[in-house]
Order: sequence, then C-alpha cells, then structure tokens
Amino acid sequence: MIQSLTIARPDDWHLHLRDGAMLTAVLPETARHFARAIIMPNLVPPVVTGAQAAAYRDRILAALPAGQTFEPLMTLYLTEDTDPADVAAAHASGLIKAVKLYPAGATTNSASGVGDFDKVRPVLEKMAEIGLPLCVHGEVTDADIDIFDREAVFIDRVLDPIRKSTPGLRVVMEHITTAEGVDYVKSNDHDLGATITTHHLIINRNHILVGGIKPHYYCLPVAKREIHRLALRAAATSGDARFFLGTDSAPHTDPNKESACGCAGCFTATNTMPLLAHVFEQDGALDKLEGFASRNGPTFYGLPVNNETLTLTKHAQPASFPAKIDTPDGPVTVFDPGYPVYWTAT
Amino acid sequence: MIQSLTIARPDDWHLHLRDGAMLTAVLPETARHFARAIIMPNLVPPVVTGAQAAAYRDRILAALPAGQTFEPLMTLYLTEDTDPADVAAAHASGLIKAVKLYPAGATTNSASGVGDFDKVRPVLEKMAEIGLPLCVHGEVTDADIDIFDREAVFIDRVLDPIRKSTPGLRVVMEHITTAEGVDYVKSNDHDLGATITTHHLIINRNHILVGGIKPHYYCLPVAKREIHRLALRAAATSGDARFFLGTDSAPHTDPNKESACGCAGCFTATNTMPLLAHVFEQDGALDKLEGFASRNGPTFYGLPVNNETLTLTKHAQPASFPAKIDTPDGPVTVFDPGYPVYWTAT
Repeated sequence: MIQSLTIARPDDWHLHLRDGAMLTAVLPETARHFARAIIMPNLVPPVVTGAQAAAYRDRILAALPAGQTFEPLMTLYLTEDTDPADVAAAHASGLIKAVKLYPAGATTNSASGVGDFDKVRPVLEKMAEIGLPLCVHGEVTDADIDIFDREAVFIDRVLDPIRKSTPGLRVVMEHITTAEGVDYVKSNDHDLGATITTHHLIINRNHILVGGIKPHYYCLPVAKREIHRLALRAAATSGDARFFLGTDSAPHTDPNKESACGCAGCFTATNTMPLLAHVFEQDGALDKLEGFASRNGPTFYGLPVNNETLTLTKHAQPASFPAKIDTPDGPVTVFDPGYPVYWTAT
Repeated sequence: MIQSLTIARPDDWHLHLRDGAMLTAVLPETARHFARAIIMPNLVPPVVTGAQAAAYRDRILAALPAGQTFEPLMTLYLTEDTDPADVAAAHASGLIKAVKLYPAGATTNSASGVGDFDKVRPVLEKMAEIGLPLCVHGEVTDADIDIFDREAVFIDRVLDPIRKSTPGLRVVMEHITTAEGVDYVKSNDHDLGATITTHHLIINRNHILVGGIKPHYYCLPVAKREIHRLALRAAATSGDARFFLGTDSAPHTDPNKESACGCAGCFTATNTMPLLAHVFEQDGALDKLEGFASRNGPTFYGLPVNNETLTLTKHAQPASFPAKIDTPDGPVTVFDPGYPVYWTAT
C-alpha cells in the first residue's frame, strides 16, 4: 500500500486568480502546491492586450508572499477586436502562452467574448502559424439550447468547424464535462488537448440539486450526469497525455455564491492535490497522477516538466482542510468533496 | 381581444401553508384568490393522524384574516405506521380529502415518508375501498438515479406497480414535471389525475442554471428541459379534465433559499392567477383556464365547483406584484416569471 508518493511539481493549466485583495488572498493557495498556472484573463475589464497581460503578470508576482515561488503563464482574452500582431508580439516575447476564447455570455465576466467567430479568423490563423494554443470555453450560449447540451453542441457547431478551417491551430478544450468532450479529444490525433477540473472528477449534477440547491457546487460548464463524470475519471486516470489538470479554481465570496443569482465557480486551489490523490487512488491509478497533474500539460504547451517535486502522503486519519479562506472581500468557501480525504500534499 | 375574464373561483389542489407566524403571513395570499386548497401535511412534525389534521385545520382557520373566506382541505402524511382505521375515520367525518405519499427523503420535510411500500399496502387498500385519493410526490430517491430521471423512474418502478396492485385506488400525481408524467396520465382511463404548478409552466432548468444559480427557481421535482415544459403547457391548456392546478406554493425565507444548501420551493400564491392568465393567453387557451383552475380539480375530488367567481383583467401596462412578502421569520420572495404580466385578479 502506497503511503507516500513524490511527483514532479504539478502545474494548473486553468486558474482564476482575480486581482487586488482577492489575488493576494488566493495566490498562496495555488503557489503552495503548483509551480505554474495558466492565468485566466477574465478580469473586469478583461486582459485583452499584451501590455495588459504584462501589467497583470507584474501584479501577480508582486502579490506572491516571500518564500513562495510561482510562475504565472499569461493568456489574452480573445475579443472580436483582438489584433493578431499584438498577439504575435506578446507570444514572441515569451509573455503569453495561450489565448482564451469565451463565447459571449458563457460564464463569469464573458460579456466581451466572441459572438461572431468570423471576426476572429485572422487571429486564429496567426496563432496556428506561430503555434500559440487557443484555450476554449466550449459552450454555446443560445437561449434555446439546454444547458446540459451546450458543450456537445459547441463541439459540433463551433469547435469542429473552427479546427477544420484553421489547420494547425492548437486547441485546449478547457474544463471538459461530457463524454462527448472526451470522445472528441480521443478521436483527434493532433493539436487537441483538454483540461479536466478537480470538481468535475468528484461531483455530478445530483450533488448540486438533490436535497437542496448547493451554489458552492455550481460552476460553468455545469456538472453533468454521472455517466459523464465517469468518462472524465476514465480519461484523467487513463494515462492519455492529451488530458491534463486545469482546476478552474475560481474564488467567489460566500455572499456572491449564496445569493438570488449565485456566481459560477468552485474554489479548489487549496485541496486539489489531496483530492486528486484520493480520486486516483480510488481508481487504482496513482501511477497516472504525475502524468495528469505534472507532465501532460507541459508536454502539450512545449514547456519543461518542473524539476521540483511535490509529495503526497496518506494518513491514517482524515486530513483537515480549511472550510473557508478569509479574504478582505469576504470568506471564500473551499470545495468540499463530501467525504473524508486522507491525503496531504507538501 | 379579451380584456376581462370571469371564472368560477379557483382552488389550489396542492399548497404549503406551514404553521405559526409563516401560516399567518402567507394564508391571505392564497385566500385572496382561491376558495379552497389541498393543504400539504409536511409540517415538522408531520400531520399523520386525524386528530393532528383537525388541530391544523383549526389553526389555519384561526389565522384567516377577517373578511377572507377559505376552506382548507386537509390531508394526512402517509407513514409506514399510518393506521388505516384512523384514515377511514378522518375521511368519514369529512375532515380529510386525501392522503399524501412522500417517498422518504424526496423533498422538504419528507424524512418520515415511505421507504417500504409494502408497509402501506393496508392503508392504500382501505383508501381504494372508501374512494379517498392518494396524492403522490412522484420521485424515487435512490442516490444512483439522476435527479432529472427520478419522476419517470418513479412511474415505472413505484407508481404503476402500486396502481396495478391496488385496483380502484384514486391517485393524483402531484406537480408533474415531465412528458412521461403527462403521457402516463393520458394513457390511463380511470382514477388518475395530475396537478401542474404555475412555475413548471413557466420555467425550465435553464432558468435555474444559466448565467448564475438561482435558488428562487429551485423546487422539487426540479424543472426539467424545455420539451417537458412544453408538454406540461400542452396538458394544462388542452382542456383534458385530468390535469388541474396545484401550485405547490411553498414559502421559504430568503436566508433559507440563498444559502449553501437552499430549500426547495417556489412561492407563487401571490401571483399564480395573473400568471396563469398570461400563460393561457399566450397559448390561445384562455377558454381553458377555468377548467384547469376551477373545474377539473373539484370534479376529480367529487366536490362542487365554487359558486363565487374571480375576475381576471388585462391592463395596458404591466401589473405590479410585490417582490417579497414580509413575514416575522424573514422575507419570502414571490416567484418572478422573468417577464412583464399584464393581468390582475380580483
């Protein structure tokens, strides 16, 4: 029985750090376990230019506590006005590692996202040319499409046409939630990967809606039925290098979650690595955890695997995690898997 | 163009009035428009005996403001310990009009409900003998059944077997939410009816989960996808006498809705009749509203249609409804259809 597992230090390939006081409060939660993270650009206003990304990177590094090391991998928020030359320059300088596509209205702070995909074609073609990945929030936003169908419909109506009309474009399907997402990645040989969140490996939609409505389990894309969770588990633990960790950890204060219109996002930065150890152990796949959390992501992004390590230790008694992170804006509830976890990470 | 419609005074065939201060606060909202209502027995502790139902009826009548008239139609909460003789006596005296079946754990205050249906067989057989309807919360509670499948699975696994093994038992499927529920009613000739809520005619599950999680749209059974809402609309406006209004109006204070685990229930007592006028007008079926709200229910229950009337009036400007009802326990949010309503009821 494995009681301790040391892996290359993991990275988080999809992370929301926010800005200001919230950034300062939540950054140490990620930097404690992760060496790098792809930083989502959906601030208010969004990070749309190289100059804005550079300034945001500087604010992140300034917020890092003494004694922690962390490398933010910056992204630009794709809008219909994004300038291909600015994107190329930010990539050439090493500043940005990806561009993020939000369909307009799909999730938190996505109002500046793309409505007309033809308008971003020049940017996508430039990205294909220079090898810069496109990170995709894969949901259509049509009012008449059921929320649980929106990922599968996006693949058919938007993603597959974009990929076919932009040969060589490298795409990461972010936070996939469906068997259709898994299957789409597996059916493509090149230039396509997917991140999977911690919480989508753990909850299905029953967790949100049975016995009361639970806003702290609400994120977008919303968790689907159990068969989809099982498909995500199988993909994450399979060893297939096209699937890698992107927590989508997203802090919202409790008043913004427990409200008449609660914000979308689960905050998993604090306990993701212990939770993943639990999940991979449950599935008899602890030997695949390093690939999922530490190796597959750098491989996709063409970056080196971290030299540092992280050690996961299983204890005889359940580990204790903070229920909430205190921030100047208010408490942020840490994702609760609903069962005891015996692993810690150091 | 109809600007005014006078119908026999409606009844509400599924209503939660609670007790104490909440009862006093919400009862006038129902009594303003409805002559009678089937009163749900899921208090804490539940109303399980004839004596408890008589005492609850007295508390309801004592809470009625001067100038309002209202007849509570009492029900008993079916438990595995329910005494068939007590049920029969409460029915013979005219006190109760139905018995309510909650599968254990299905919704608010249902912990005393039925887990082993064989244990309630003597009660069901007695009810069939005396013609007392069984009101059914039609959802299985098995953890491994997806919440959106629970009504359809209940019909197959529980309701249909109960009805087949208890000939003559009159059943009301409460607050049906699915095309399967509609089809099951329509495929049976005798002894089966269904109530439909106001909110299930208006919202689908996208309203709960798109663009934020909205606890005031959360009820159990939870709203399903759009095709099911359309099936309910078609059933309600069809004129088929087996479908009738049961609002399931259920007051919860805002702090109990906007929480880490929000309570199930929509409060529609205040504006149900204006909303129904809007819905039936939209579907070109204003001539069917009286059947749905005022005639089909009494017919099923073997009670006279009310002699009094209610007049619905359409105005040139949107009608104004209170956003919340103030209660000593806290504010209760009134169901918001999300669009302007031009009808009032007097």
